[in-house]
Amino acid sequence: MTGTARRGRPRSEDADARILGAAQELLFARGYDRFVMDEAAVRAGVAKTTLYRRWPTKDHLLVALVAKVQDEVPVADTGDVRADLTVYLTAIATGLNRMRAVGRTGDRDDRSAGMVAELVAAAARHPDVGDAVRGLFARRNTLVLALLDHARERGDLRAGTSSTVLFDQLAGALYYRLLVTGEPIDAAYVRDLVDHALTGAAATPHPERN
Amino acid sequence: MTGTARRGRPRSEDADARILGAAQELLFARGYDRFVMDEAAVRAGVAKTTLYRRWPTKDHLLVALVAKVQDEVPVADTGDVRADLTVYLTAIATGLNRMRAVGRTGDRDDRSAGMVAELVAAAARHPDVGDAVRGLFARRNTLVLALLDHARERGDLRAGTSSTVLFDQLAGALYYRLLVTGEPIDAAYVRDLVDHALTGAAATPHPERN
Repeated sequence: MTGTARRGRPRSEDADARILGAAQELLFARGYDRFVMDEAAVRAGVAKTTLYRRWPTKDHLLVALVAKVQDEVPVADTGDVRADLTVYLTAIATGLNRMRAVGRTGDRDDRSAGMVAELVAAAARHPDVGDAVRGLFARRNTLVLALLDHARERGDLRAGTSSTVLFDQLAGALYYRLLVTGEPIDAAYVRDLVDHALTGAAATPHPERN
Repeated sequence: MTGTARRGRPRSEDADARILGAAQELLFARGYDRFVMDEAAVRAGVAKTTLYRRWPTKDHLLVALVAKVQDEVPVADTGDVRADLTVYLTAIATGLNRMRAVGRTGDRDDRSAGMVAELVAAAARHPDVGDAVRGLFARRNTLVLALLDHARERGDLRAGTSSTVLFDQLAGALYYRLLVTGEPIDAAYVRDLVDHALTGAAATPHPERN
């Protein structure tokens, strides 16, 4: 732990971090189906009641884990919007591919969306999980939307560009491939995607709307 | 049925169509959770074994229903790629919003992805359902990809545009909003999305790569 470890019961943030660390190891080793809440408590060295008070179900714990994984990916705003988007989306793609592969053995279908699909399904089934997932993405996406706003203010993106619509096109393409078509999302695809979104598909540019 | 109705056991396509019609009514009235396979057989007037032989689980039946709903949406290639994309994506958005609302009462969270999330989760859990879902979208998307290829051949899309990447950006944004962020997907959003994808976000267009 840290150098400021105290005797007795650790602070709840310490317990949370230990639980999340243990849960992440177990989930990534076994997959969602074979992950058992109680084992995460044992591995983290906390009482089961501590775990369940904080995260009442596997789905709630999964949301917290996704938040942890997202927070580990920095959003760098270097002033080169093409490069910044490419780096950030490549990191998202890497994270999605990792979640896709979780708990899968070599002979399982590697086009399945894996744990991300479980998150999406839990969000659809349980209103509180849904609120947590949507809140998580809203909070996280704020960072990249600010980056796009800055690029527009600098004049690197055209005045009529909506940061939200642009980011939907980019992140959306990655999630669509992961969750729906099963097509690969690799670094070459990300570069191509960013290029398409910045350049536009029309041969003759549409007149600016604002 | 049709004017060529015969005596005795109906052809299996007739049974399939009756089962799908009955299943669609039940599913859309009750939602995925409260949908019971046996009731679809009773309502369609077929033996349960006929139903289960054709679609062994609720998930398999859901895939067939989504195929039916998709096939009801025409892909019109009128020569105006902006208009054609807008009409087609608006139809997809309408279908997704309908599946989102299935089985939901007024007081349930209307930002949930509903039945589409069940489809995605089933595709991730069961390799055969996953293959069916990915095959369904691959087959269906062929039509709109051909439309985009024609637009590029006519010179309405720039030579460097990949039909697949362009369509990923468009369909992807709709599914991302439905499944992840919960943001609305309405006709105004679709128009904005098509405009962004065709125009491009960069203030200074990137040099053509091919």
